[in-house]
Amino acid sequence: MAVYTEVADEELEAFLAAYDIGELRACKGIAEGVENSNFLLHTTMGSYLLTLYEKRVARNDLPFFLGLMNHLAAKGIHCPVPIRSRKGEMLGELAGRPAAIVSFLEGLSVRRPQPKHCAQLGEGLAQLHLAGRDFPLRRANALTVTGWRPLFEACGARADEVSSGLAAELGVELAFLEANWPRDLAQGVIHADLFPDNVFFIGEKLSGLIDFYFACNDALAYDLAICLNAWCFEADGSFNITKARALTQSYNAVRPLDAAELAALPLLARGSAMRFLLTRLYDWLNHPEGALVKPKNPLEYLRRLRFHRGVASPDAYGLDR
Amino acid sequence: MAVYTEVADEELEAFLAAYDIGELRACKGIAEGVENSNFLLHTTMGSYLLTLYEKRVARNDLPFFLGLMNHLAAKGIHCPVPIRSRKGEMLGELAGRPAAIVSFLEGLSVRRPQPKHCAQLGEGLAQLHLAGRDFPLRRANALTVTGWRPLFEACGARADEVSSGLAAELGVELAFLEANWPRDLAQGVIHADLFPDNVFFIGEKLSGLIDFYFACNDALAYDLAICLNAWCFEADGSFNITKARALTQSYNAVRPLDAAELAALPLLARGSAMRFLLTRLYDWLNHPEGALVKPKNPLEYLRRLRFHRGVASPDAYGLDR
Repeated sequence: MAVYTEVADEELEAFLAAYDIGELRACKGIAEGVENSNFLLHTTMGSYLLTLYEKRVARNDLPFFLGLMNHLAAKGIHCPVPIRSRKGEMLGELAGRPAAIVSFLEGLSVRRPQPKHCAQLGEGLAQLHLAGRDFPLRRANALTVTGWRPLFEACGARADEVSSGLAAELGVELAFLEANWPRDLAQGVIHADLFPDNVFFIGEKLSGLIDFYFACNDALAYDLAICLNAWCFEADGSFNITKARALTQSYNAVRPLDAAELAALPLLARGSAMRFLLTRLYDWLNHPEGALVKPKNPLEYLRRLRFHRGVASPDAYGLDR
Repeated sequence: MAVYTEVADEELEAFLAAYDIGELRACKGIAEGVENSNFLLHTTMGSYLLTLYEKRVARNDLPFFLGLMNHLAAKGIHCPVPIRSRKGEMLGELAGRPAAIVSFLEGLSVRRPQPKHCAQLGEGLAQLHLAGRDFPLRRANALTVTGWRPLFEACGARADEVSSGLAAELGVELAFLEANWPRDLAQGVIHADLFPDNVFFIGEKLSGLIDFYFACNDALAYDLAICLNAWCFEADGSFNITKARALTQSYNAVRPLDAAELAALPLLARGSAMRFLLTRLYDWLNHPEGALVKPKNPLEYLRRLRFHRGVASPDAYGLDR
């Protein structure tokens, strides 16, 4: 939620001269995303988003991210479309950072999703998975089960500062997930961070998906499990089965889950809760005093994790076996 | 440079329903201004700026600021135009704060102004002063000479932490300014904060003035003195007489300075340097560790102050007596 890099007029002008997007009329740093610097551009041809990739995004991953958006948009998915320079390049450099221009996507994210939004999300997520099937590039998920132990080791010793007994509970859970993590589920490109912030609506209709900077190859059903955690719990921590049913059934109607995916869903949901719990715990314990971005409370995800641990079948998520 | 207040969807929707500006299509928090929260709105009718006034802006002053922009726009000055609600009101409330919608002004601020920009600025500033002549509301300048001693007393004791001998130098200067401050100069509405950030250009042409939240009634020539400080010094601290000449002569061509104003200009420039030196010194000494907004170095203005102290006549600013 910040602009980390200031761009000098002359630099911006020189950068934009390589693109065929009209004359610049306004450039505003916007509070979007936590990883990069984003500027909304108004030109004589329309609105665009200029992104400067800051340190936390690996430069090697950018062709995957930009190529994916380009691929998905060509398949009719409403996502930002990378604009190519006159030389045909999607990636440039500005203020010493990799930089790209993408189409500006109209739409509004909902802060308190309703079942109707979850239904739209399920459909959109399944369409995304289908559209990504023939995307040729690959990117491993750095934050899947194999990535959790290093995170746990980096912050587990201080976990009890956040909640008494947390380190022990996470240790047991992590060992269980490592031993039982499903490895034979249908794979594909997943968004991996489809929180309400990253889904736009116009009226009640899903109008676009943004922020593909965690996208990777992994089990498709894991993406659905992430959405269950991100969209179907209330502020008081309770699980809303109506929202879950809307999400999973609308997903299933577009891309039917197979028996292995259905059976694995509770475990995937536990794993997804663990993933966000660990990254939030790490950020919580390591954020500098008075930092720009306030870290999110990791304990929200402990409650989710405990919920999924008590789930025996996908019925609990509104699906039938 | 921040968004201080998050606005919930439902609140925003309810707020916008009172305005006739079309349907909302996008809402982005933007990094503009240091005092308020600003959101760029795209609607089916165009672009608008939504401002939530945070604590540092006194609610009682808002009718002056909004009324002034409305008045100036009606006189042909390119500035944000407050949009009235269907009830005819320019000021509403959102997320517990006073809030207003203004037209979105296209244009780009220049970070390294050239003489051509200074010439445009001088003309625009003079036009602003002429257009403000018959604005009926009044607002005293809280940051004129009478406001400097309280600031000095609040931070003078620690001034030497910033630069050895600073407290003594400021004490002498302040006493001199208090004893000699001109009180009989032509008065009117001044912008009082017309830094390059607040002036938009399209190509080489001035396209708009923004951020009227320091505007007040004061000596018109004081506004010109503020611009001399804000636009005519180089990054290395040197004074650029070419820029100053472009600024003052283009101002003078639209609104000729009288003999008293010409004679007072060096003193007004000293006072203006003192004003920004003191507020920056205060912010420098009082900003919280790791705060969102990095304070600006007060010593830039000490150099300016010393320069003006050595100026004997308005020739130095490119004007003839």
